[in-house]
Formats: sequence, structure tokens, C-alpha cells
Amino acid sequence: MILSSSTVDIVSVYAVLHADDARHIGVREGDRVTIINNAKGTSVRAAVSLTENVTTPGTIIITAGANEKLQTNKGDPVEIRVASRPASIEFIRKKMDGGKLTREETAQIVEDMTANVLSPSEITAYITAAYINNLDMDEIEYLTREMVASGDRLSFNTRPIVDKHSIGGVPGNKITLLVVPVIAAAGLLIPKTSSRAITGAGGTADLMEALAPVTFTIQEIQQMTLKAGGVIVWGGATNIAPADDLIITYEYPLKIDARGQMLASIMAKKMAVGSDTCVIDIPVGPGTKVPNENEGRLLANDLIELGRRLGVRVECAITYGGAPVGRNIGVNLEVTEALRILEGMPGPTSLMQKSAALAGMALEMTGKTAYGFGTEAAMDLIKSGKALQKMQEMIEIQGGDPKVKSSDLALGSNVFDVPAPNDGYVIAVKNRELINVARTAGSPADHGAGLYLHKKPGESVKKGEPILTIYADRGWRLQRAIEEARVSMPVVVEGMLLDRVPPIRRVA
Amino acid sequence: MILSSSTVDIVSVYAVLHADDARHIGVREGDRVTIINNAKGTSVRAAVSLTENVTTPGTIIITAGANEKLQTNKGDPVEIRVASRPASIEFIRKKMDGGKLTREETAQIVEDMTANVLSPSEITAYITAAYINNLDMDEIEYLTREMVASGDRLSFNTRPIVDKHSIGGVPGNKITLLVVPVIAAAGLLIPKTSSRAITGAGGTADLMEALAPVTFTIQEIQQMTLKAGGVIVWGGATNIAPADDLIITYEYPLKIDARGQMLASIMAKKMAVGSDTCVIDIPVGPGTKVPNENEGRLLANDLIELGRRLGVRVECAITYGGAPVGRNIGVNLEVTEALRILEGMPGPTSLMQKSAALAGMALEMTGKTAYGFGTEAAMDLIKSGKALQKMQEMIEIQGGDPKVKSSDLALGSNVFDVPAPNDGYVIAVKNRELINVARTAGSPADHGAGLYLHKKPGESVKKGEPILTIYADRGWRLQRAIEEARVSMPVVVEGMLLDRVPPIRRVA
Repeated sequence: MILSSSTVDIVSVYAVLHADDARHIGVREGDRVTIINNAKGTSVRAAVSLTENVTTPGTIIITAGANEKLQTNKGDPVEIRVASRPASIEFIRKKMDGGKLTREETAQIVEDMTANVLSPSEITAYITAAYINNLDMDEIEYLTREMVASGDRLSFNTRPIVDKHSIGGVPGNKITLLVVPVIAAAGLLIPKTSSRAITGAGGTADLMEALAPVTFTIQEIQQMTLKAGGVIVWGGATNIAPADDLIITYEYPLKIDARGQMLASIMAKKMAVGSDTCVIDIPVGPGTKVPNENEGRLLANDLIELGRRLGVRVECAITYGGAPVGRNIGVNLEVTEALRILEGMPGPTSLMQKSAALAGMALEMTGKTAYGFGTEAAMDLIKSGKALQKMQEMIEIQGGDPKVKSSDLALGSNVFDVPAPNDGYVIAVKNRELINVARTAGSPADHGAGLYLHKKPGESVKKGEPILTIYADRGWRLQRAIEEARVSMPVVVEGMLLDRVPPIRRVA
Repeated sequence: MILSSSTVDIVSVYAVLHADDARHIGVREGDRVTIINNAKGTSVRAAVSLTENVTTPGTIIITAGANEKLQTNKGDPVEIRVASRPASIEFIRKKMDGGKLTREETAQIVEDMTANVLSPSEITAYITAAYINNLDMDEIEYLTREMVASGDRLSFNTRPIVDKHSIGGVPGNKITLLVVPVIAAAGLLIPKTSSRAITGAGGTADLMEALAPVTFTIQEIQQMTLKAGGVIVWGGATNIAPADDLIITYEYPLKIDARGQMLASIMAKKMAVGSDTCVIDIPVGPGTKVPNENEGRLLANDLIELGRRLGVRVECAITYGGAPVGRNIGVNLEVTEALRILEGMPGPTSLMQKSAALAGMALEMTGKTAYGFGTEAAMDLIKSGKALQKMQEMIEIQGGDPKVKSSDLALGSNVFDVPAPNDGYVIAVKNRELINVARTAGSPADHGAGLYLHKKPGESVKKGEPILTIYADRGWRLQRAIEEARVSMPVVVEGMLLDRVPPIRRVA
């Protein structure tokens, strides 16, 4: 990608001091100073960063984030005073030393985190300490409550308010596009906030955006939910639990997903939209976030207990996550597959089954059906066309075209069938590698890009028959995706070579 | 302090991308991109930082640190490619998960740290993980070796090369100004690198600077040591063990001093100057870094074992650190006190005793005297004037005036005697509070500032007799230091009020 370069300043609240000035004032890297703009009567507390070459003694560099409050112009005189360290750093130290954080201490950390008072390094120290020393259920409850308090919330006058969440890691998991309209079609309210693709080929917000806008204020989300029963919007556009977004941001470079923070993250987002009834999908198996059913049950217990403390009734479904849900991966491919089911066209049984089962749990929990009859009721809502009608209402209220049909969504015009290397049974599909092929083909930025999985584990295949069809909007991306599929072999056919020693050298 | 403000860019190697561009490329906060300046054939790998307001899509912000290699001008087009994450992040994760780092893994972390490849947050994660999960002696050895390898080193053709270190925390610890000339006067080589005040009232480098320049290249340090036998220079001006400086920088905001990193830090600096014989002073007691003798012995054992692995013979002295060494605190005050002893004038016995004992250990370890005769030999070198003569040589070779006398050093002209509040014995002096009074008076930036401690624990005092004299170069600083002393009461006289409830309100 070609961008235009610029060397202006960045967002964090830093005061960059020459080392000589810092010595004179008596501050070091990471200390806090108060910068005062006497001309305007403004001041800001900033973390000190030292330099010996990008400035000269007598000149302080202020980041854009700091100057927002200070409103100085280049060359204006500012007064510098030593400021105290944020109290939350002591609480982070306490967690590093194995202590247990109180509600007040957790509140202070979350407040200082979201107010930019803690530096990225200090937030990372908190995350690392909580990862290594773990948070107990009290600490997780406090963190969840403070995450919710850190941002905006929805508040409905009626009950129940339903929500649904899937633990990530499974490609093609477009079930939200079915679960939400089914639940709303049953007369329930479900204000569903979703994320965009992080490491996957398409997040639910990316999928919904192929049908309608997904960026709304919290007030709009509430009003639309009250009118249409359900919405599917992008949570990232709201100010819901911003502390959670910060933690996720700083966890990401370390590729950690600490248990305590994950539980708090899930439940904070549910609590913040006012949900009191929540169905959580926990896919387990190789390539997912949860390696086996037993771990899935432990996670479910923690979610239920945390929900109980927060006044949210939680039930969890342990689902099979070792292969994609349905057969399509990529934005328009997944939306097409979901719409086809709503339209009553033939589609993967697994997708319909899983969606109906999850929606059915919500129907049972809210008393819309008796226990044991939820899945069937959900199936009926799909088959009767009521879920499709509800989806059209949702698309319309979000500003999309309610007349959209599954056949309207354009798939990439550059197409390639990956053939089976020999006769045999598919013994495995590799989730991560499938996602990589779809991403290499252009997903989620290119809406037509992605793949169709012809064969899932247990199905037989003949040599030369397609096992995978790759779609791309751009030719060069298709070529790269084909290469990627050749190297990573995401569909494993019994009897096929798994590796070759010495490896084939790829030409760059 | 009044500075001139400027909003230019900062040192770290960051690429600040608009969130939309990042989504398009498929990178998130903390991921790495390669930025290519095709016009000049330059490129740099940088950590991604996201923004939605300080830049617009299509424009990337490059920090000064990144632009050093890239050499772009504002508005130049640059190409962005996704780059791989540094391998060292995996090793940091391993330490977070309780694993043991190999030599190779440690080397990669240290390399990526010093090359600015790891972000401050990632370095903090490493430090936090090593603090919580501890480093074992193998890991400490690897870290020490890699710290040494990260920078310049001295290498002498002769042996022994002596060094000396004091664990910090004790105010007024000017013994290096005595120990180094004594050891050099005995015909030994001692290339002593020292630090400036960090949280104290004056580091050894600050003290020596009152007598001669202390900023030299590694080559100059070697040549001067060969000529004069000893030098006392500022380590911060050299490129010795820069990885250690980085770790200290990122430990500081968290106020931690992890055992493993502290051991590595001490021994890396000794090893890097080519030392094979090292005396380490471990002050113990309230207000120091080591709370009691037993902890001091454990630390000594670790230092000796680490030295053994690295080929440095280490002996440690457990010393009393509950009160200042000597009676003067502050740059010129401390230098005066040390020079008076070298000049044969009366001075605190404790200072002379401690200095001679430590220098004597080095004389014994190197065979200059038999065991048990080192202290006496060191005393003789002081009393005979040989140590003074050596100190004058050292001052001269470093570019100072060798004829300087203890009476030449100007003490602050603003002076105040703090009187004893009542008759009694001094039962305690508070190290930290004494340092704060000296710093408030202007030390170490104002060379004449500091204090003289009239009474040490166990000495009797009459009401109104001075217990402390404060010196300051500037009147307003004296006033602040007097207030500070009134509030913090660094000298505790038996029978004196320790606190008053409700507290007296201070007027700002």
C-alpha cells in the first residue's frame, strides 16, 4: 500500500524533555509533570519521555494528545512542575506482587487507563501481571463493572433484553445473521453489537455491513432495537466499555487472551447493552480458542457465575469448532449462505441446526417456549419466513435495502478450484489455514473474496475433484491465495503427502 | 521551570496509521510494518500505532526514530508492507508463561530491545514477567553476558583490573572518592564508571564532576586508566551495556528493581570494563535497598556465584546503611568531606573506616597485602598522602585542576540551622527524608546545596542546638527545604512529637 508520509505528532499524552532539563527538574522517564500554559490558564499532566537529540534544552515536546488540553502554539512558553505519580501504579505493583485488587483499586486503574493517565507501558504491566498472577472471580467482577462504567450504556424499560456471543476462532461463523432475526421474530429485543474481523476473514459487523450501515450512536441503537426488535451493529463505533477495547489493544501485541480479562470483556459488553439474558456459544476443538469440551465446560461455569454476580442470566452452548460453520468463508460468501437459509433455499444443515439451537436457547430462557422446544420453534420461525421478514426490517431500519436477495451479493470474479490431490476421505480441515487463504484472497476488505469448502471431514473425494473454490475481486490476490493454499494445504485428504523433506523452496 | 513548547515528533520507531488504512492492510496496534521509501531505496520496520483523528486515510505518520533510517520528507509517498513480528515476543510470552529462557532467546530479546525493534510496552512485558516469575541463575548469567555484548567494552592486557560497586539507597555515600584513589595508589588499575543521581542527592559522577570532567569515550577511559591507574567517570556517557540502561528506564515507572535484573545490571557493568576483581558494598538496614543482614548475605552469595560464572572474583562487604555515610549530603558538601580525609584533616571516622575497609578488601584480593592487613594498608595510603597525590593525578588526567583543595568548594550561601525541638538522644535519622531535604535545597543540580548532619543516632542533643544545617545556592530553595525538613522531620530526637492529629494544614 502506498501512503503519503508525514512527521507530525502522536496521540498519547507525553511530555518529551531534553535529558538536561529533566535532570534539572529532577524527573526521569515515566515520571509525571504538570505542564501549565499560563497565557491560557490551561494545564495537563503528562508522562515524561526523555531525549538527547530530538530537542534542545529549554524546549519541551508536547504530543497532540497533551496539547488538546493545553492549546499551546509552537514556541509558546510553558511552565513545568513535578506532578505526583498516578495512584493506580501502586495498585498495578500490588497485582505484580501477587496481591488481590479491591473494587476501588480496580476502579482507579480503569479510570486512569481510559483517561490516558497511564502510559501504554503501565497498562501493559497491569495486563501482564493479571495474566501471570490471574484475577479471581471477585476481581473479574470488579473489572467487568468498571469496564461497563467506563463508557456508555443502553437502558431499556422492559425485560427481557437478550444478547448472544460466540467465543471466536471458528471460520465462517455467520450464525449471528440467523440467530438475531429469529430471536427478534419471536418478539424479543436483541441489541446486538458485533466486532469487525480481527484475525479472521470477516467479523459479524463486516458481514452485516454488506447489507446495511453498521455505525450508529448508542441512542440510535436503542431506538432501532425498540422499533425493529433487533439490530446488528458495529460495537467499535460506540463508546461501550472503552476500557475493554484498551485492554484488548494492549494484549494483542503479546498475543495473549488472559482468562480474567476475556470473561470481563464478554460480560461487560453484554451488561452495557442492558442485557439480562445471554446465550454464549463456546466452540471447542483444534484450532479454536478452547481446546476441548472439558475446558469448554469450565469456561461456561465461569461465565454463568460471573453473569449471576452481575444480574445477567447466562446459558452456554458447547459447540463443535474443529471445522468451519457452513461451507462459505468471506464477507459476501457468508452473507449469501445465511440469507439463503432465511429465504428457505437449501443450505448446510450444520449452519441451520446450530443457529436454531442457539436462538432456541434464548426462546426457552425467556419463556417464549417451554424447555426442550426452543430449537423447533426457532426452526419454525426460519421455515415460515418470519425470520427473513424480521431480517428485512432490521436491514431497513439500519438504512439498507430490505429487498436484497442472497443472489444479489457479488462473489469475486476471479475464481479457482483447488483439486483433490488423490482419492480418499477428508480427514481434517485446518481452520487457521482456511482463514489465511480467505484473507490472502482479499477478505474482509474485498467483499467478494473468500472460499467455498466443497468437502468437510468425513466426506469422500476423488482425485481432481474440487475440494476448495477460491474467489477474489482482484487477479493478483487470487494468484497469491492459490499459492497460499498449495503451501498450507487447509483440506487434508487421507493418503496425501503432509510434508516433503527437504522442503520445496518457494520463489519470492 | 519555564520551557518553550514545540509539537514535533518523538524518538521511538512507530508508524502511526489511520485505522481505515490499517484495516485495509490487515494490521492492528502493535503489529509490524515495513515502510519503504522507494525514491531513496531505504526502509525501516516499525510498530503500528493506530489513530482516527491525528491523521487521515492515505497518510502515515512516521516518528523521528523511524525517519532516521527512512529519510522521507513530509508528503513523500512511502510503500507499506506487513512485516513479521519480532521472534523475541514469543520468548517474552514464554517467560510470561513461566518458562525458562535459553541463552539464544535471551540474546534475541536483548538485541531486539537495543535495536528499538521491541516497543516500550513489549519491553515492559518482559520486565514484568521476569519480575513476577523470576530469573534463575542460568537466565541471569545469559542476561548479563548479553547486556555486556550489547555495548562497548574495555579490554586490558594486564591483570588484575579492579572494580568497586555500592548497592544504592544510603545518602552521602561518597566513599568511591576515597576507595578509587587508594586502590590506584597501591599500583592497581581501577576504571570506575559511576552514575549520576537517580533518586539520590548526588551520584558519584555528580560528585567527581565538581572536580573534573566525567564524560569520556571508552577509549579515553582505557588510556586514562593505564596512565593514572584510576579514573572516576560517568558511565552514562559511554555505550557500556546499553541494554541494562533500557531495562532500568522501563523498570523505573513501576518502581521495581527485580533481583535478577539487578544482579545482571551490576555484574554487566563490571564485566564490560574488563574487571576480574570486584568489591561490592551492600548497605543494609531501614531505608536501604536491603532490609537486613540476612538478606544482604543472600544477595552477596548470588553476586559471588554470578561473578564465578562470569570469571569475575567478587567479595562483598555488608555495611551499616541505616544512616548516612559521613555527615555531609550534596555535591560540594560531600566532595569537601572526602577531600578533607585525603588531605589528612579531621573527618568522620565512619567514612574513613568504611572506605579503608573496602579498598583494603581489593588490596587483599589482589595479593597487594596479606589477608587481614588490607584495611591497615589502605589507611596508610590515606595517611601518607599517597591517596591524595593519586586523586590529584586522576583529577588532572580527567582535565580538572589538580591543585584543588577541600576549602575551594563553595557551599551554598543561604544557610539555616534546624534546631532540636527538645533535649534528648537522636534515636533515628530517616535516609529518604534527608535526601528529600537535600534535593529540595537544590542538590544535585545546585552544587552548593545540601545539608550537614550534626547529630547521628545515639548522640545527645540539647533543645535549640542545631541538628541539621541546610545549604542552598538560591534563597527560595532554602525556604522550601526548611519547610520540607519541618514536615518530614528527618532527625528523630527521643521525646519529640512524631505526628499531630489533625495534621497542620500546609499553605501552598
